[in-house]
Amino acid sequence: MRIPIHHSVERRSLLKILSAIGQPPLRFAFRSGEAVSPPGSAPVATIVIRDRTTLLRMMLNPEIGFGDGYADGSVEVEGDLVAALEAVYRSILMLTRGGRTAAASKWIDRLRSNTPQRSRENVHHHYDLKSDFYELWLDPQLVYTCAYFPTPTTTLEEAQIAKMDHICRKLQLRPGETVAEAGFGWGALALHMAKHYGVRVKAFNLSHEQTVFARRRARDEGMAGQVEFIEDDYRNISGRFDVFVSVGMLEHVGASHYADLGSLIHRTVGASGRGLLHFIGRNRPAPLSAWIRKRIFPGAYTPALREVMEAFEPWDFSVCDIENLRLHYAKTLEHWLARYERSIGQVSAMFDSTLARTWRLYLAGSLAAFRVGTMQLFQITFAGPECERIPWTRAHLYSPERRQEPEQQWTRMMS
Amino acid sequence: MRIPIHHSVERRSLLKILSAIGQPPLRFAFRSGEAVSPPGSAPVATIVIRDRTTLLRMMLNPEIGFGDGYADGSVEVEGDLVAALEAVYRSILMLTRGGRTAAASKWIDRLRSNTPQRSRENVHHHYDLKSDFYELWLDPQLVYTCAYFPTPTTTLEEAQIAKMDHICRKLQLRPGETVAEAGFGWGALALHMAKHYGVRVKAFNLSHEQTVFARRRARDEGMAGQVEFIEDDYRNISGRFDVFVSVGMLEHVGASHYADLGSLIHRTVGASGRGLLHFIGRNRPAPLSAWIRKRIFPGAYTPALREVMEAFEPWDFSVCDIENLRLHYAKTLEHWLARYERSIGQVSAMFDSTLARTWRLYLAGSLAAFRVGTMQLFQITFAGPECERIPWTRAHLYSPERRQEPEQQWTRMMS
Repeated sequence: MRIPIHHSVERRSLLKILSAIGQPPLRFAFRSGEAVSPPGSAPVATIVIRDRTTLLRMMLNPEIGFGDGYADGSVEVEGDLVAALEAVYRSILMLTRGGRTAAASKWIDRLRSNTPQRSRENVHHHYDLKSDFYELWLDPQLVYTCAYFPTPTTTLEEAQIAKMDHICRKLQLRPGETVAEAGFGWGALALHMAKHYGVRVKAFNLSHEQTVFARRRARDEGMAGQVEFIEDDYRNISGRFDVFVSVGMLEHVGASHYADLGSLIHRTVGASGRGLLHFIGRNRPAPLSAWIRKRIFPGAYTPALREVMEAFEPWDFSVCDIENLRLHYAKTLEHWLARYERSIGQVSAMFDSTLARTWRLYLAGSLAAFRVGTMQLFQITFAGPECERIPWTRAHLYSPERRQEPEQQWTRMMS
Repeated sequence: MRIPIHHSVERRSLLKILSAIGQPPLRFAFRSGEAVSPPGSAPVATIVIRDRTTLLRMMLNPEIGFGDGYADGSVEVEGDLVAALEAVYRSILMLTRGGRTAAASKWIDRLRSNTPQRSRENVHHHYDLKSDFYELWLDPQLVYTCAYFPTPTTTLEEAQIAKMDHICRKLQLRPGETVAEAGFGWGALALHMAKHYGVRVKAFNLSHEQTVFARRRARDEGMAGQVEFIEDDYRNISGRFDVFVSVGMLEHVGASHYADLGSLIHRTVGASGRGLLHFIGRNRPAPLSAWIRKRIFPGAYTPALREVMEAFEPWDFSVCDIENLRLHYAKTLEHWLARYERSIGQVSAMFDSTLARTWRLYLAGSLAAFRVGTMQLFQITFAGPECERIPWTRAHLYSPERRQEPEQQWTRMMS
């Protein structure tokens, strides 16, 4: 686009930002009155920038400039925030299509690798917010990962339970088996596995708040003998188990640690074991938004499938099943965001308006990313080379009787 | 193992071979009477080597030496051939576990890259054997790829039909849609899609024999207006289609051509399209056996999942679903091998005993590989970034009504 030189510096800056993000159908306005939008399509929303300082910050670093500006109110979005973010993500996607993809994104990880100490700090940053805060907008069991909606109208509460059952069925848990869980959140899955599938669980998590919460719940529900919640790094899992499971933790591992994770899994379940990883991924390797890494998830990385294979290949783990639940994460986030919006006054009172707007942007941006497809949600079921518990088909996942052991479906690998 | 120097050179050679393949529970015998086996476990079979020439060939190149020796009868296996091969594959697997995996196996491909001319020669080598030969041991529709057995007792005929339905359901074909098929074998899937799902198919294959056969079948069944069988390289697919499907063809593409295949798929179905690849793969990158490449499938390569991602990443294709059907290929091969054994006299009469034994070893070795897990069978369902036909869940694959359109399950990506 040719920019006539008589335009103001604000206008030229707005045009440059618009161009850099691929001309999405958005109006960019400066509070003084200047406004630009791409020709052709009607803008879905207006981004209002309050002052030159904010404009400069966006020129220097669009992601952090926009994100921090939105958080402190110096950037406002008039119209649908989610629709505006979808428009941006979609136009950025178009810019990069067909290009070479990065061999891997380990460089970003090397800048700040997740050592045990850093992992502890990173987890503390996000997960040690009081559970009162998460209770405002999560389901009653505080399951803070993608739910599974058998139909789009399933409630969030039901969908989180369905997700836990879906995972237990994929793992084909049998009474008496032992499970190692890396990253347990507030403990819902570990308790669900123990209660409804009769397994014993040893679960690891670096968050002190979450560990205290989960232990109290285990005690209250009489499950402390079957479920052990340990406040420690997943790398310190020791002992031998039948099954390894990790839901929403791989995002915090970092791209340069997948081979180590694979060795840990092998050490934990051996060649006859099996497991499941549930994580946010991507269609191709790329770093998370700089703003998300700065304000929401320090040290986080959402891998492409190719990158995760580094965990499995050296030990001959077979990928048995990969399911992409992207649409289910969009649906989950619709529920979370709607609940969050209803509680945003309480969040502001609990903290301040900057934190309240930061988390709104994070939830809205995540919803937009899953709708557009810049984020995917993968569940990988895997088995060691000597595993004898490979299901014959996946039909048992969809049979009407829930939580029934499909013993007759099992097959030994060697006939 | 310490080898006392007074042993004969034959015995020392046999011990060396046994050691090189990781001491599987096999007895290696020289026809003159020398025999060795590893201590501890009872041998599952005896490998009898006729003469020094054969022994030398096995020392020089174990895979080709054994394979060619078996084919011409200078190596005999006393006992269960499949069990013997399973023992070898299992012990070789143990040798390599935990090691670094190759970054990729493109080097092997570069030695003899699949140019269109070479692909034509490679396909001719295998698929231009008269269909009379394949009719001896395949199902009546001549489906020469892994079947899908809803239960282990499903017949081969039923399982091949179930496989085609499984693929059509994964693709969610609708009447009137267009499908490009890369590699059509004897035409069964193309005809099945057109007949039972109402789509129009343009299918490509380099084999002259197969094309003649498939065209005749399309004419005989009155489907020539809906299914076009083209004797040409998959790289020459032109035009725009809703769906791309390829079953048992990726193995012939070669590791250095996956990015080109991805570009072809993008050109064929665009950002809104979808498709499925069904192929033999591995847990980690490794070349095929030298004997298989020499005698059975010149130019073939069975990739690890990581390698295949090169086709999808540059165009932002999403992996929607990966299913591993390894156990189903073992079952398919049990059927094929049993039928083949019943017909081996006819094969010898049709060709000669060397070809008959070559193909027995290839089928038995493939069965052993799928049982042990050195081979996997992957079905990858993928969708372009603007695809609006992503199924909400996979439940429709397992609903009792077959071939029913699950319209109500479809969802638009953008709500």
